Amino acid sequence: MDKRKKVLIAILSGAILLGALSFSVAIDDDYTSGLTLEDAKRVIAAAEEKAIAEGLRMNIAVADVGGNLVAFERMDKAWLGSIDIAINKAYTAVAFNMTTEALGAASQPEQSLFGIHASNDGKLIIFGGGIPLYRNGELVGAIGVSGSSVPNDITVAEAGEAAF
Amino acid sequence: MDKRKKVLIAILSGAILLGALSFSVAIDDDYTSGLTLEDAKRVIAAAEEKAIAEGLRMNIAVADVGGNLVAFERMDKAWLGSIDIAINKAYTAVAFNMTTEALGAASQPEQSLFGIHASNDGKLIIFGGGIPLYRNGELVGAIGVSGSSVPNDITVAEAGEAAF
Amino acid sequence: MDKRKKVLIAILSGAILLGALSFSVAIDDDYTSGLTLEDAKRVIAAAEEKAIAEGLRMNIAVADVGGNLVAFERMDKAWLGSIDIAINKAYTAVAFNMTTEALGAASQPEQSLFGIHASNDGKLIIFGGGIPLYRNGELVGAIGVSGSSVPNDITVAEAGEAAF
Amino acid sequence: MDKRKKVLIAILSGAILLGALSFSVAIDDDYTSGLTLEDAKRVIAAAEEKAIAEGLRMNIAVADVGGNLVAFERMDKAWLGSIDIAINKAYTAVAFNMTTEALGAASQPEQSLFGIHASNDGKLIIFGGGIPLYRNGELVGAIGVSGSSVPNDITVAEAGEAAF
Repeated sequence: MDKRKKVLIAILSGAILLGALSFSVAIDDDYTSGLTLEDAKRVIAAAEEKAIAEGLRMNIAVADVGGNLVAFERMDKAWLGSIDIAINKAYTAVAFNMTTEALGAASQPEQSLFGIHASNDGKLIIFGGGIPLYRNGELVGAIGVSGSSVPNDITVAEAGEAAF
Repeated sequence: MDKRKKVLIAILSGAILLGALSFSVAIDDDYTSGLTLEDAKRVIAAAEEKAIAEGLRMNIAVADVGGNLVAFERMDKAWLGSIDIAINKAYTAVAFNMTTEALGAASQPEQSLFGIHASNDGKLIIFGGGIPLYRNGELVGAIGVSGSSVPNDITVAEAGEAAF
Repeated sequence: MDKRKKVLIAILSGAILLGALSFSVAIDDDYTSGLTLEDAKRVIAAAEEKAIAEGLRMNIAVADVGGNLVAFERMDKAWLGSIDIAINKAYTAVAFNMTTEALGAASQPEQSLFGIHASNDGKLIIFGGGIPLYRNGELVGAIGVSGSSVPNDITVAEAGEAAF
Repeated sequence: MDKRKKVLIAILSGAILLGALSFSVAIDDDYTSGLTLEDAKRVIAAAEEKAIAEGLRMNIAVADVGGNLVAFERMDKAWLGSIDIAINKAYTAVAFNMTTEALGAASQPEQSLFGIHASNDGKLIIFGGGIPLYRNGELVGAIGVSGSSVPNDITVAEAGEAAF
């Protein structure tokens, strides 16, 4: 093998290695969920900051693209009953790739999805406060907020979404 | 050290000790729940007395601030199906720091929280008879009553609340 | 009234006020849970730091004295099946005021509590990784860790406990 | 009317009244279950008294012949996880008309009923502390105690049983 061929092979090998590395890096960051714990913490911190600014006590959850919980916090004296609701607003927003508000509109009596809230082992929440999170146009998770009126829940969830 | 200084120091020491004692007593009494079994018995006894006076047969439950059951009684021949409802009215009133009646009003079809009754593993009761209990302005538990019409359930629950 | 009496009364009033304040602060801080979100974040951060140092990927949960979730995080690529286990290790450690390891030892076949894992709606975890948290000798919550071998789970939970 | 007639009427009236009273007492005592709330309170009070004497903090439940809860109390700072267990020890003792200790002996690995604890929606408790209550040789309910070691649970349950 002459020197040029060797150089070519070396360059090709390097390129393949780099490709493989970049591929594995891509896998590392995006494959399992596309939403890291670091992302979830940033989203929750922004939502909490908004809640404090508004004088609200919230339960805040972030789920990944599998609908599984990534991170959660209950602010001091926030409603106990909203632990389940915040977590499941995040689940619901991932599960149907839409806000829980939008799902709720379609799930009222006489609407097309009425009754859906009894499915999924009671994990669907059909009022606002759950918002999907996208990266590069792809669904990667959701935030769910519960602890006050629905408009307040939505306001705080949007603050979290904005930080994503 | 003259006599006056000694007296002053003794008084100060006593005052500091009293402060410390009141602090530790507060912790001892309040940490687990802020609502004792003695409180729960008094609340239930008052509710039962009212039920007897009204000729009603009730299930009566008291939960602590964690939503966990402290005491319960079912009067003779009271509805079996109301065991779960009384216990969970108490849970619900703690979980959202409001009466189950107020939660129910916001949870009707077309209202903001419609569908909430399917959350929390079916433990939310969205009609009257669950009332939060406060001490020094802080939520410490709730009473839940079930066994008759909702207005009757509320009347009996209020009699229990009044004894707290 | 002479000057000394006035000073004495002022000091006494101040001391009584301090005592009253410490009492009301105790109530305010401790009534709902005795363990704040700030506490939970600190405990989880310490546990996460230990997990990173050990090259582990963990689910980490903190519950309050009512057994209710205060905060949770799942490290990137940590087991999904451990979300439930971490949360319920924290619940279990509060529910029996002992480590899940100690409860597990008493719950083996032929031991006194065999079968207990089927109670509490499947929420009891009977292997190590759940540790109660105490303040001034009183139970105020627990940490639960799941995501690796039980000894690793315990190591990480202890790191969280140490930060409390 | 002569004096004898008056006496006769008085006696007859008294007899009818007594008959009516005994009839209504019979209805009151036997209709739902044969175990009244009054019975349950007496049983629980005796168990609580024993627990206090032994320095124990217990959850104490009484179920009727239908296995349904009649009364319950959790002593201050008793284990949260034992709420479910005390209630279900009472259920289990009624459900199989034997102590939970006896059921447990038959439910160990390699024994005839191994696995039974996963039936009945997780409501069966297979260690001591649940004891049936009999009246005139008939099963009318059970007491369930949980909050300490199994021998302690049994001791307190027996104190309740003795008061029945």
